[in-house]
Amino acid sequence: MKGKTYDELEVGMSASLTRTVTEADVVMFGGVTGDLNPAHFNEVYAAASPFKGRIAHGMLGAGYISAVFGMSLPGPGTIYLEQTLGFKAPVRMGETITASVELVEKLPKGRCRFTTTCTNQDDTVVITGEAIVLPPR
Amino acid sequence: MKGKTYDELEVGMSASLTRTVTEADVVMFGGVTGDLNPAHFNEVYAAASPFKGRIAHGMLGAGYISAVFGMSLPGPGTIYLEQTLGFKAPVRMGETITASVELVEKLPKGRCRFTTTCTNQDDTVVITGEAIVLPPR
Amino acid sequence: MKGKTYDELEVGMSASLTRTVTEADVVMFGGVTGDLNPAHFNEVYAAASPFKGRIAHGMLGAGYISAVFGMSLPGPGTIYLEQTLGFKAPVRMGETITASVELVEKLPKGRCRFTTTCTNQDDTVVITGEAIVLPPR
Amino acid sequence: MKGKTYDELEVGMSASLTRTVTEADVVMFGGVTGDLNPAHFNEVYAAASPFKGRIAHGMLGAGYISAVFGMSLPGPGTIYLEQTLGFKAPVRMGETITASVELVEKLPKGRCRFTTTCTNQDDTVVITGEAIVLPPR
Repeated sequence: MKGKTYDELEVGMSASLTRTVTEADVVMFGGVTGDLNPAHFNEVYAAASPFKGRIAHGMLGAGYISAVFGMSLPGPGTIYLEQTLGFKAPVRMGETITASVELVEKLPKGRCRFTTTCTNQDDTVVITGEAIVLPPR
Repeated sequence: MKGKTYDELEVGMSASLTRTVTEADVVMFGGVTGDLNPAHFNEVYAAASPFKGRIAHGMLGAGYISAVFGMSLPGPGTIYLEQTLGFKAPVRMGETITASVELVEKLPKGRCRFTTTCTNQDDTVVITGEAIVLPPR
Repeated sequence: MKGKTYDELEVGMSASLTRTVTEADVVMFGGVTGDLNPAHFNEVYAAASPFKGRIAHGMLGAGYISAVFGMSLPGPGTIYLEQTLGFKAPVRMGETITASVELVEKLPKGRCRFTTTCTNQDDTVVITGEAIVLPPR
Repeated sequence: MKGKTYDELEVGMSASLTRTVTEADVVMFGGVTGDLNPAHFNEVYAAASPFKGRIAHGMLGAGYISAVFGMSLPGPGTIYLEQTLGFKAPVRMGETITASVELVEKLPKGRCRFTTTCTNQDDTVVITGEAIVLPPR
């Protein structure tokens, strides 16, 4: 129950999590964040929007990235410091998203820089970004 | 059910959402993101950690920011393009978090730049950052 | 709000509960148990598996059996002592499962032995087993 | 995303999952299984019961065992065949439960027998049992 320490980490290490986005995920994510935007919750509204139907919350994918850091790499004990997110494409319910992180630089003061990417089942990039995390000691 | 357009928006406009973080929020956020990190789900582990107890997912606060954009300012029809997040302090269950956004710059191509901040009930800043969004047309 | 006592129970008594398994049930069951196995959560993975798609958690059906004991027969006040489970067939989302229990033997010390079976809408047996419970006094 | 095969498994291998049981877990577990037994949902009733307060569903611990099989050992691709459960002690909300599995015998036809145990934060055994699973090929 302890993730990799700074010394155990090497540039190029990566980890990922894959999950199908369901309507239930969107309902619960909306419930706990308060983001009840009609783009996610109103099919009549959403069908008339540029996306032609309800989409998932972009921040749900950011949650998957967080899951990879906290559970896999570096893993438990990691402290999340910074994250940048570029939302590149909408995610619809039923899509299967892979959140991947890769260590690209070991920084001073025990910090690490990772690239963070979410892709869908067709390898379309839906989220890009980078994170700075502090691995467990 | 339509947010403010680019032309209707003015630098300095702001909006916020305030919500108490409950244990149920953390359970559901973890369930839908897959982030079952022991820092959030194992009190014995967490009590022995630097945070001295379970904390909420940092990305939950990012969800609150997303909620303000999608529901208040600019509001429905907004397309989320970019977000930076600095996690400055842990959030415990029972804390009451306010997510605030403020328009700081109207950019070319119909885009807007906002500062995004989450503070707790004691005005401690827990998340800082900026976002680029595309208001509805 | 009190179930049947040992003296009120007779061999051959039975009760059941029927429920359609939804995607939301699977998402929430996985969230609260931590069982985010890709067989339940990753459609791309599951489609390539022997089951040709996502299936529900087998233990969800065990939860239905527990529900019959605690709510119907013997009912409130029952103490669950033992359960055996044989998982005979996968359950897909959309299937309608009936969990049935039947009293087959009154044991010493106030205990009762039940057969416990889950079947789907086509009468295919998906779970078999037996339970020992202590009815309310 | 593939668990250990029969050949990769050795007697004595073990894995576990630890999680604090929250009120939200009980609410959601009850919602998805239909087990709304007053022992779990009615504090007035439960306070007057032998357990002196609401307890969690015993089958929730069985779900943790299922999680270990499906996610850790043998891991993804495992088919759950049989499980016996002995409920030895009640679990209250706030308790931290560890579900552990240990391979005790490699059986014919690619099957494996595991002991399965749940203990609480004080090392009190709350669930005992055994399982037969079919590891991935």
